[in-house]
Amino acid sequence: MKTLSESRAFGGVQGVYAHTSAATGGDMTFGLFLPAEAEHDPVPVLWFLSGLTCTHENAMVKAGAQKWAAEEGLALVFPDTSPRGTGVADDAAYDLGQGAGFYVNATQAPWAPHFRMWDYVTKELPDLLFKAFPLDEGRQGITGHSMGGHGALTIAMSFPGRFRSVSAFAPIANPSASDWGRKQFTAYLGKDEGAWAPHDATLLMRKRGFDGPVLVDQGASDQFLDLLRPEALAEAMAARRQEGTFRMQRGYDHSYFFVSSFMEEHVTFHAQALYD
Amino acid sequence: MKTLSESRAFGGVQGVYAHTSAATGGDMTFGLFLPAEAEHDPVPVLWFLSGLTCTHENAMVKAGAQKWAAEEGLALVFPDTSPRGTGVADDAAYDLGQGAGFYVNATQAPWAPHFRMWDYVTKELPDLLFKAFPLDEGRQGITGHSMGGHGALTIAMSFPGRFRSVSAFAPIANPSASDWGRKQFTAYLGKDEGAWAPHDATLLMRKRGFDGPVLVDQGASDQFLDLLRPEALAEAMAARRQEGTFRMQRGYDHSYFFVSSFMEEHVTFHAQALYD
Repeated sequence: MKTLSESRAFGGVQGVYAHTSAATGGDMTFGLFLPAEAEHDPVPVLWFLSGLTCTHENAMVKAGAQKWAAEEGLALVFPDTSPRGTGVADDAAYDLGQGAGFYVNATQAPWAPHFRMWDYVTKELPDLLFKAFPLDEGRQGITGHSMGGHGALTIAMSFPGRFRSVSAFAPIANPSASDWGRKQFTAYLGKDEGAWAPHDATLLMRKRGFDGPVLVDQGASDQFLDLLRPEALAEAMAARRQEGTFRMQRGYDHSYFFVSSFMEEHVTFHAQALYD
Repeated sequence: MKTLSESRAFGGVQGVYAHTSAATGGDMTFGLFLPAEAEHDPVPVLWFLSGLTCTHENAMVKAGAQKWAAEEGLALVFPDTSPRGTGVADDAAYDLGQGAGFYVNATQAPWAPHFRMWDYVTKELPDLLFKAFPLDEGRQGITGHSMGGHGALTIAMSFPGRFRSVSAFAPIANPSASDWGRKQFTAYLGKDEGAWAPHDATLLMRKRGFDGPVLVDQGASDQFLDLLRPEALAEAMAARRQEGTFRMQRGYDHSYFFVSSFMEEHVTFHAQALYD
């Protein structure tokens, strides 16, 4: 693992690191914020998964999470959203290929060899992080924005007991029924929709739910509401009697201005679960 | 004036606007955050001037100021750092030409016709803003980062009575004695150092000072300390008995992680002066 940069931030350290990944068959970069408390003891971890077109960097510099993580003594992990590089398949569209991994393991050509973001985020990166940094594996929360909100919700529901809390900002909530989903699942997973179901937050919510609190924020003026389908997730949460909160925020769009506006409440929400 | 985008943020609106500028002879873009209070009454304004290579956007998305401005009911203005476009002179170096206007009016070829950022930021943009938006001209503060800290300090000291408070993050503090200054002043203003003096914060502090509180933060691990020369400004502030605070922050570098770490305190500092 290589240190690309380390900057003091809010009394802790915002680092950027690169490593060779077996899961994706190439180099991967991630950001990690460690609060001051990590100098002495392992600290709880909040994962932040990013959306379409993002790298590890966007949320790290735009979401404003470090301030609140420092106050709560939480680490923040910012993984990349896909494998990258000249040897990695790509597509001219912004919503397929590099920058658009959708947190699945691709089974179809040309994506299959590298696009294994599910394994990367749920197995390889945690293994590396808990070995290399003072992080408390027993206290993890997960959140994300848009495609990353989809990732956070599906991963949280697929590993019962691993995360104490899950939240999402404007998640792609029902990809099996959206052009942000059907297109990518067909490309990465093939035409059999049975293979899609484990990666649809609404379907998972109907089937399993989450054993802990859930917080979802959605901007009412989001330019992508038709693609996100928040109503499907809200219905599923309520139908399941899922512990949690779904909030429609008047006037907010899909940007990081929306994300940063509610970041304090999301970090506080996770801290309450992690220090319970 | 053209609205490029408006996003709800922290209960207010983060807008981006473009207009044709007489001062710089071309189109200019700026960011403006209006807190919710601006829906009813004119609000105080905090100017944020950015550093080398930045556009209007960097601080707007990375400095984390909106949260605190919203809490204090302040507007934030994020001007660009230079004229831009194909008809505008430029240089291959990152620290001269586009993205490096240094908040002066160039008198030398090829910069003279467009590089008039002093007039733009001190006259044309304020005239436009106070006409077009609910801003209280009687309550203004100014801050900035690096080259923008230089701009904030020199402008504040050059217009007595206009700003109630001035602060800076890692300002270029003594450009007449630094390679971040001598090179650009020679190019923009010519070889006569007499023309440079009105644009050197340390020299202005020695000669005039500021009629109000000053706050300067500097990272002790800043990679550009030799170019910034904070010691010259600290000495001048103390020698003048300038009301204010100069803080050396252990471990912090020159990045926006440093800026955002202390943004709350800077916004609060200005709010105290503006609501006095």
